[in-house]
Order: sequence, then structure tokens, then C-alpha cells
Amino acid sequence: MRTQVGIVGAGPAGLLLSHLLALAGIDSVVLETRSRAYVEQRVRAGVLEHPTVELLREVGLAERLDREGMPHEGVSLRFEGEDHRIDFADLVGRGITVYGQQEVVKDLIAARLRDGGDLRFEVADVTLDGLADTPVIAYTDADGQRHELRCDVVAGCDGFHGISRGAYAPEMFEREYPYAWLGILAKAAPTHHELVYANHDRGFALYSMRSPEITRLYLQVPPDTDVHDWSDARIWDELGTRLAAEGFTLNEGPVLEKGVTGMRSVVAEPMRHGRLFLAGDAAHIVPPTGAKGMNLAIADVRVLADALTAFLARGDERGVDAYSDTCLRRVWRAEHFSWWMTSMLHVAPDGDAFTRRLQLSQLRYTVSSRAAATSLAENYTGLPYGGVR
Amino acid sequence: MRTQVGIVGAGPAGLLLSHLLALAGIDSVVLETRSRAYVEQRVRAGVLEHPTVELLREVGLAERLDREGMPHEGVSLRFEGEDHRIDFADLVGRGITVYGQQEVVKDLIAARLRDGGDLRFEVADVTLDGLADTPVIAYTDADGQRHELRCDVVAGCDGFHGISRGAYAPEMFEREYPYAWLGILAKAAPTHHELVYANHDRGFALYSMRSPEITRLYLQVPPDTDVHDWSDARIWDELGTRLAAEGFTLNEGPVLEKGVTGMRSVVAEPMRHGRLFLAGDAAHIVPPTGAKGMNLAIADVRVLADALTAFLARGDERGVDAYSDTCLRRVWRAEHFSWWMTSMLHVAPDGDAFTRRLQLSQLRYTVSSRAAATSLAENYTGLPYGGVR
Repeated sequence: MRTQVGIVGAGPAGLLLSHLLALAGIDSVVLETRSRAYVEQRVRAGVLEHPTVELLREVGLAERLDREGMPHEGVSLRFEGEDHRIDFADLVGRGITVYGQQEVVKDLIAARLRDGGDLRFEVADVTLDGLADTPVIAYTDADGQRHELRCDVVAGCDGFHGISRGAYAPEMFEREYPYAWLGILAKAAPTHHELVYANHDRGFALYSMRSPEITRLYLQVPPDTDVHDWSDARIWDELGTRLAAEGFTLNEGPVLEKGVTGMRSVVAEPMRHGRLFLAGDAAHIVPPTGAKGMNLAIADVRVLADALTAFLARGDERGVDAYSDTCLRRVWRAEHFSWWMTSMLHVAPDGDAFTRRLQLSQLRYTVSSRAAATSLAENYTGLPYGGVR
Repeated sequence: MRTQVGIVGAGPAGLLLSHLLALAGIDSVVLETRSRAYVEQRVRAGVLEHPTVELLREVGLAERLDREGMPHEGVSLRFEGEDHRIDFADLVGRGITVYGQQEVVKDLIAARLRDGGDLRFEVADVTLDGLADTPVIAYTDADGQRHELRCDVVAGCDGFHGISRGAYAPEMFEREYPYAWLGILAKAAPTHHELVYANHDRGFALYSMRSPEITRLYLQVPPDTDVHDWSDARIWDELGTRLAAEGFTLNEGPVLEKGVTGMRSVVAEPMRHGRLFLAGDAAHIVPPTGAKGMNLAIADVRVLADALTAFLARGDERGVDAYSDTCLRRVWRAEHFSWWMTSMLHVAPDGDAFTRRLQLSQLRYTVSSRAAATSLAENYTGLPYGGVR
């Protein structure tokens, strides 16, 4: 069995890469250890930045996104009990779209299957060999049969816990944050039409939504938090305290999902090893505060699809040689922005009073200076592709 | 003996306060432990932000400043061996003026003496009493004579090591930085017409100047540095390494002064205790990176002069009651900006590779985004008085 590009992982990165390559006439096979149902239901990020939406439109993947996605033209920073809106439309002339990652995945799978794409779910024991020049991906299919897939290049899109990154020894840059997010998905109509990032003495809280019926809410908690210590009542109570503001009502409702997510930053350098190219979470993790995870994955595969097309169709190696450096500029910009948002909004457990005062001064400045608000807005809504130095 | 305002300290804050009060018809006496020659020669900060220059002009103190001060319309950030100019004039329509603090002090002393101001140098054993309602400042004059000065209010403008702050127990907010600045004043004509803030793997360096003949240069060093370990040759060598850039030549020359300054941030809250009002370094210290120290002192006394005039001339207490909160907004903005500049430019001795990458991403972003560059420019050139939330 052979293909031009063997893609490990059917998340947004792997699936979109397969779609973009198909548009350029390049064959690929996508291998995924989970089932189709699992990846289509997995709740992850929900904010698409402007360049992401534009790209999905350009490549014919935005029909349902344009119908069901919720365009937002701003977010609020809430502190000292007051809301301060960052007006993206006014500041940078572009916004974001709230649309769950699992919806993007469903659209991508539907498009690939419609176009005759080769997606193989529930594979196991994936191994990579011959990455220097003649890559071979071996795996066991859902029926227990072992296969070998020969390819020109391998795209490692298998997330942070995937096997691709382990095929070489990239330099790892890491930071752990001293807090985690307790997130819930609740059947409760949103009472505020945009995201609210709240800084409170008791910690950070985020008010967001996934649809006109579903609210998505987060609380800063210690990293070792056991989700069982948080009853629904305790969660609503704490959300009520941290999100309190004049004129704001928190709609409560049945909790559909509940989970604790650690927060960390990780970057693997370089993102290429011979004929293996990492993309998305396989190469980098951002804390969720800046809503950059899925957007970075999509930015990576946009660069990768062009680079692989030039290489495989025309033997032009410039794109593949520049791939890692090109992506890492945007990755580090996103790491910095996510760190900045995280530091500004969370209350450090070991934070001294000086740090807290700096944080409040930073928040006041961000909402009162047009330059500072523009800086937040241009990062949050997404810097133009190719526009990051 | 009595006066309306007893001012402790003849630095820029105390002297300017005395001048502003005299313009409003309010009497004051300035007490200073050092000699006039000492305060007129003491080398300190040298960057006047735009609102500072405007204020000095308005109150008739800018004749020599306008003649000898060096107006700058930008600064450079130098990293990875390249210069990136932040064009203040283009970004915010205002600049800074390089003019040594001791020159401001000379001008203020000359103006006070010309106008019949009461300045008493070389006093000792200053004590404060009756601050709740009937302040008395006791001191010993240069001839060893003890005096009592009764006043309506006391202005504590005696710097960080002065006695004023000790008269009550303000809450102290502090941060120590893990580095210091080794500074030299050299008889060498500047080869670059604006300040250069250089970030290098070996640490921060600052290229600045005091006149067309005098260069002022700084190197980041460990906080426990003994200045005797740094020969002139070693200093020039290290400056050459850290400031290296295409087309840049470092002019060497005789070293006129050499010293090590620790870097810290300190804020005392509140800045008022009964009839005692702190201003300038007596209430807050900033690391020198943002060039905010003297400018903050001048911003404080501008607010204080108005507040005391309203109180003493018309019995209006609103200004004195708001004094501390009003000043602290600007103080914390400056503390945040100084911390931000410091963190972006210095290399932390315990810094991990992740932090270093974030720093480079921050630097690249600051020089490539108009919003980010504007944010630096508006803070560096000085936010308008009353314009800080």
C-alpha cells in the first residue's frame, strides 16, 4: 500500500491537511486510533479566529459554519465588578466565530468522505520508520490486521500524546502554570452574547457559549483539583461570585459535561525531522486562555499543504525547508499572547500583593488605551497569515 | 517659625512643589540634609517625558531646558544584532527630552532663589510631629542650631531613604529584580542620536547620552556586583559585545563616573497620612528601564500643588482627599510599564529557554505591530496628566 502523504491523526490538523492536499491533487491517507464517533463528539476549543474562518471559506468548508457559527465582534474583560468591552470590529475590523472544534471535525470528515478521502479509524500500534528518505507507517486495523503504508512524507497530526513527536528528539520548551480550568457544558441559554473573561480576587472565570442553548463556563482551580469535589451547586455558586457584575444574570441549567484541564505551554523545535512534519498539538500546546490551540493547528497545515504540494508536485524543497521556522514564528507569537492573557487574568496562588496590583494596572490600561486594546484585539482575532515576524 | 507647607527634601519633587506653590501664593520652606553643591551635581535620571517638559514650560522653568535639552523623537530596540526604531513622533506625535536630573535641580534652585524662595541646605536630625492636625518639623541647621518649623501641611519629598515615610506605616508593595545596572558616564561623543535599548544573550545594555560630548552607558550585571571588578577596559569590551550591530560604532573615552545601581520596584500606599503627603521616591521606586522615576515625582507634585492650593487658600479638601488615589493610578501604570520594559529586555539569570523565546517573540511583536509599538511609545513619552485610569 502506498500514498503520497501519510497523515497520523484525524483531528482538525490531519483532516484539513488531507482536504487541502486533495484540492492540490496530492493523495493522502489519514490514520486515527479513535473511532469516528469519538472524534466527532470530543469537546475541545470553540473559538475560530478570523484567518481560520477565511481559510475554511476559501476551501469550501464553511457552509454549516456560516449558518450555525456565532460571529462575535468583541469580548469583555470583567474586573472589579465592571465590564469593559474590547470592540474587535472597531479596533481591527474583524472578529471571531464561536463554533465547536467537534463541529469543524464533523464538517471535515463529511467533506473528505464525500470527496472519496481515505480515512481509517480505530487503528492501533502505529509505528513510523524510514523517516530519512522512505517513510513507512505500520499499523493494525480495526479487524486486527497489520498493514504497512509507504509514503513520500509523514504528517504527524496526532496531538500532544501521539507517537509522532517521539520519532525524533526535538528540543522541548515548556512551562507549567500553577492552576487548571474546571470546565462545564450546561444546558442553559447564554445571557450575554459574547465571551466574558473575568478576573476576580478568588480567581479567573470565563463565560462562553457553544450555541443559543448551551453555555460553556470555566473556573480557575488548583492543578490537583479532583472534579468530584465540585458539585454542580458549588460550581454555580463560585461562578456566581466570580462573574458578578451590575446587570449580569447567570442562567443556571443541567450540567452536561464537567472536567478539569491542566494548563501548560509546550513547544517542540524543530517541527520537522527528515520526511516527518509535525503540525498542531503534536508540536505545541498553549494554555486555553487565548483560544489559540485549534487556530494554530490550522495555520500549521495551511503552510504544510503548500510546502508539500510544491515538494511532491514540483520537487521544490524551499517550502519544506522553511516549514518549521515559518510555523514557529506564529507559534511563539501565540505562546506569548496566551501567556500574557493567562498572566493578566489568573490569580497566582503564590502571587504577592505587588503582582496583583500590576495585574490590575495592566487590566485598566488594556481597556483604556486604544493601542493596548488593539494589541489584544489583533492577537485574539488572529494576525494575518504570513504577517507574524 | 512657621510656613504653610514644610517641604522635606530639595530634589526635583520638593523644589518644583515649592515653585508651584509660590506661583499660587502659598508659602513654603524647603529643608535638605545635603549641600546645594551636592544636589546640583548628583547624577540621576536623564529622560524627561513630554508632559514633564510641557509642565516645566508652563511654569517658566524651561528656558535652559529648551536651549540645552536634546529632543528625541524615538528610541531603538536592538536585538539579534539589529536595530528597530520606535518612531515616537509618527506613533504618538510627541517625544522625550534628554536633560539630566541635576540640570533640572540647578534650574529649580536658581528659580527659587531668584524668587526669594526659602531653601535650607545641610540641615540634620529632621523629625516630624503633630501630623494629625498641627505639624511641626524640627531640625538642626548647618551651624548646629535646633529649630522648629510649624506648618499647615508637610510634603515628604526626601526620597526613598528619607525620614518622611517612616512617620506612619504605609502598606509596602515591593519587588526585587535579580540584576543591577553598572552605569558609566564617559567623555565620548555619542555616535547614535537616540537611546538604544539592547537585548543580548549576555544581558541588557543601554546606550544613552547626556550632551553632545558625554555618553551614558549601562550594563546589566548581577545585583552583588563589586564595581572594582569592572575595569574600564572590561566595561568597554562588554558594551562592545552587547551593543554590536551592523553600522554601529561605539565611541570610547575617559570614564568620568562609574557605579552599580540595584533595581527594584516599591510602592507605599496610601501616599498621605493626616497632614503629611509623600511625593516622588519617598513613596515609590521604579526600576530605571522605563525612565519614569523623576517624571513620576513631577507628576505627583503637580497634583499635590493643586490640592494644597485648594485646601490652604479655600479650605477645599477634595483635592487632598483624592491625592493618594489620583497619584497611585499613574504610579502603578509606571510600575507596570517599567516592569514590562525590564522583563522584555533583561536576561534573567535563572531564566529558562521558554522565557527567552517568549522574550524574543515579545520584542519582534513590539517592533512589527503598530499597536504594540504605540503602546510602548505612549507610555515612554508619558501618558497625559489625568489620562491614566
